[in-house]
Amino acid sequence: MTTVADRLDIRAAALDEYTVDETGRSGRRPRGIVRAADLDDVLGTVEWARHTGTPIICRGAGTSLEGHLLARGDEVVLDLSALDTIRSISPTDFTATVQPGVTRTRLNAAAAAYGLQFTVDPGADASIGGMAATNATGTTTVRYGGMHANTLALQAVFADGTVARLGRAVRKSSSGYDLKDLLIGSAGTLGIITELTVRLHPIPAWQRALRISFPSVADAVAAAVDMLGQALPVTRAELVDATSMAAINAYRGTRHPIAPALFLDLTATSEEAAALDETEIRALCTGHRALEIVAAQNHTAQHSLWEDRHHLFFALKARHPGHRFLVTDTAVPYSRIADAVATAEQLGALLDLDIAVAGHIGDGNVHVVVPYTAETAERARDFSDQVVRHALSVGGTASGEHGIGLAKKQYLQAEHGAAVELMTAVKRALDPLGLLNPGKILD
Amino acid sequence: MTTVADRLDIRAAALDEYTVDETGRSGRRPRGIVRAADLDDVLGTVEWARHTGTPIICRGAGTSLEGHLLARGDEVVLDLSALDTIRSISPTDFTATVQPGVTRTRLNAAAAAYGLQFTVDPGADASIGGMAATNATGTTTVRYGGMHANTLALQAVFADGTVARLGRAVRKSSSGYDLKDLLIGSAGTLGIITELTVRLHPIPAWQRALRISFPSVADAVAAAVDMLGQALPVTRAELVDATSMAAINAYRGTRHPIAPALFLDLTATSEEAAALDETEIRALCTGHRALEIVAAQNHTAQHSLWEDRHHLFFALKARHPGHRFLVTDTAVPYSRIADAVATAEQLGALLDLDIAVAGHIGDGNVHVVVPYTAETAERARDFSDQVVRHALSVGGTASGEHGIGLAKKQYLQAEHGAAVELMTAVKRALDPLGLLNPGKILD
Repeated sequence: MTTVADRLDIRAAALDEYTVDETGRSGRRPRGIVRAADLDDVLGTVEWARHTGTPIICRGAGTSLEGHLLARGDEVVLDLSALDTIRSISPTDFTATVQPGVTRTRLNAAAAAYGLQFTVDPGADASIGGMAATNATGTTTVRYGGMHANTLALQAVFADGTVARLGRAVRKSSSGYDLKDLLIGSAGTLGIITELTVRLHPIPAWQRALRISFPSVADAVAAAVDMLGQALPVTRAELVDATSMAAINAYRGTRHPIAPALFLDLTATSEEAAALDETEIRALCTGHRALEIVAAQNHTAQHSLWEDRHHLFFALKARHPGHRFLVTDTAVPYSRIADAVATAEQLGALLDLDIAVAGHIGDGNVHVVVPYTAETAERARDFSDQVVRHALSVGGTASGEHGIGLAKKQYLQAEHGAAVELMTAVKRALDPLGLLNPGKILD
Repeated sequence: MTTVADRLDIRAAALDEYTVDETGRSGRRPRGIVRAADLDDVLGTVEWARHTGTPIICRGAGTSLEGHLLARGDEVVLDLSALDTIRSISPTDFTATVQPGVTRTRLNAAAAAYGLQFTVDPGADASIGGMAATNATGTTTVRYGGMHANTLALQAVFADGTVARLGRAVRKSSSGYDLKDLLIGSAGTLGIITELTVRLHPIPAWQRALRISFPSVADAVAAAVDMLGQALPVTRAELVDATSMAAINAYRGTRHPIAPALFLDLTATSEEAAALDETEIRALCTGHRALEIVAAQNHTAQHSLWEDRHHLFFALKARHPGHRFLVTDTAVPYSRIADAVATAEQLGALLDLDIAVAGHIGDGNVHVVVPYTAETAERARDFSDQVVRHALSVGGTASGEHGIGLAKKQYLQAEHGAAVELMTAVKRALDPLGLLNPGKILD
């Protein structure tokens, strides 16, 4: 049997691969890489880490946006991406049990054979384990919830080598403390997720996509909140601002109005019901001064409509060649969304940054994309800082879905106050030696 | 300023009132009662408790079914029922902020003025704080989720006197550890909930209620799972067995088929859509050999249809005069519901108990009502024990929604294994002196 020390990959090229995350930020070279092939490898690594005092950073698809994966230099990276077996899919229980390295597109391809889907969609082709670790959400959260709602049970390895199952693979349980949800979003700082049972949802029989332009962000927000207030069956509700629409037009050769727009998906159980809901939405949006309403009924038209939204980041990259990008991630109460966007626009003008807004409006989650260069990097950071402080001042959160990682640690105290001490107490109780992703979320 | 000791109610009659819970089980007389009028009273009680080493049992409406509120004898009961202010309702954010003693019917009456509802419905008129503490769910969980999904933020007092806010009043947050969900279902053993911000949902524009009889429980279950698989907009899906239907007929003077039945609520955004969904459900149930399908379209007919279900417990009491009742609370995967009911029926026959089954089938949560007398009490306990062990053996949970309290502690190890040690570590970290509801959930 080879030991972890024998198998540690310490080649410079390999270490360099693991120093960056998706944002292009870089950490230090970790001490080495362990590529886990099974649970025993995870257990072996934890045991070795405990005995040698080596901290562990777990890594899945590596799509974190907040520095969760960046090393200080003394850590090993435990790469879980090869733990990628879909153990089972139950079409009767609407569940799948997977290893953490399974990516969401692979799970969706397998679930589709049963008419089912794994709905959490953060954009990137993240691993399911990483998505649980960072509490990923995304465009469909308004209807289906994020990883908290869609993860029923976890298996995890803890710092003392304990292997435990958290939660049960049933729709509800009130048995014992909810450690399953404690681990979700803990970013590998409390335990290492080695298996998950997640919920699957039926693929809707009928779907319609709409793109609706409004004279102002406030109108678009008011329309979206009205739809939610009337319980219209919206499964996606995305806000895209005028700057973003201009970038999309330039990149995709479209001629959409250069005005704030809502991108919506509607689902229904029959074609007639879908038509009825579309009529309701048209009337509602007209009442909110809609400039243009475009509906896509067949799959091809829907795909094309959403491609505009999905390509937004590429469109912004094309608009700003040679720039890097910072993406804010605050979430605010519905009543504060328009205010949050207006504040971002004012700040952008003040700091002379060509910002673009794209938000999961159904969740109050506002992403502002800030292009910057070496010259404007400080202003971009200043922008991000003020956006977060504004969100916190109106009862919002520093992170709607990307997590705290390293990048948002400075706001933890302002957001959570006395609860930070409680978080620290929980961390100490479950990882007294500080072996699991130290310095992330908490100091 | 009066001290807690001065205000402790130690009258025998008062103490006696607090020795029983809704099931009729009784504990010992607590040491005294403190009736909190504000946050300072809670803080004062916690400080006094810490200095005197007196454990605290929090109490809201007192509707626990699993012994959460029963005293060993050395505790004070901290009665939070007078903390009953609805602080705010936001019709734009779809939220309400309430003190823990506000009952769900009071909140619903206030929310209705805005066309909104608080959807979690455990049957009893429980307090919102107690509902969070026990992770209450109920008939609408299939559509809206339970207290985890519907509580956005909490204020809680911890054993060391810390007052902390857990979670944020936004739709989603990935900031820090999810202590909000850790407290939900912890039954006052980790902290004392002193304020909650909960989600409200729009009251549906159109609703239909259906009662559908089937030749067997397996047919009814298969029909319900098919409805969920087709994403039909079911907001309640209740299973009632033949014995229960016979009791309802006798109690209510109705002549429904004495056969297993589903009670359903459908919601829709238009009358036409409701009609379409009803047609789908009728076809689906006919395909599952439905014996009778009754639909209620107007409010009066819907109310009457659901009254049958809501009066079930009274109907069973009338069927078994002089009996006491035990209610099981397991939840199992959908594929095991029919099996769980068949197992209960076989056990009932074997032990000569006239059981009745009523389950939140949309959640796999099966309640078996077991009437018993002093003579058959041991058999009833044996029945309950075997039902729980069966549920655990098929991947289910000992408690779908009533909690562990005292009554289900014996199953915690079998259900959670190594995770019980982790729960104990969390308890020790947050309540090292064991002052908060000691002996509940964990030893």
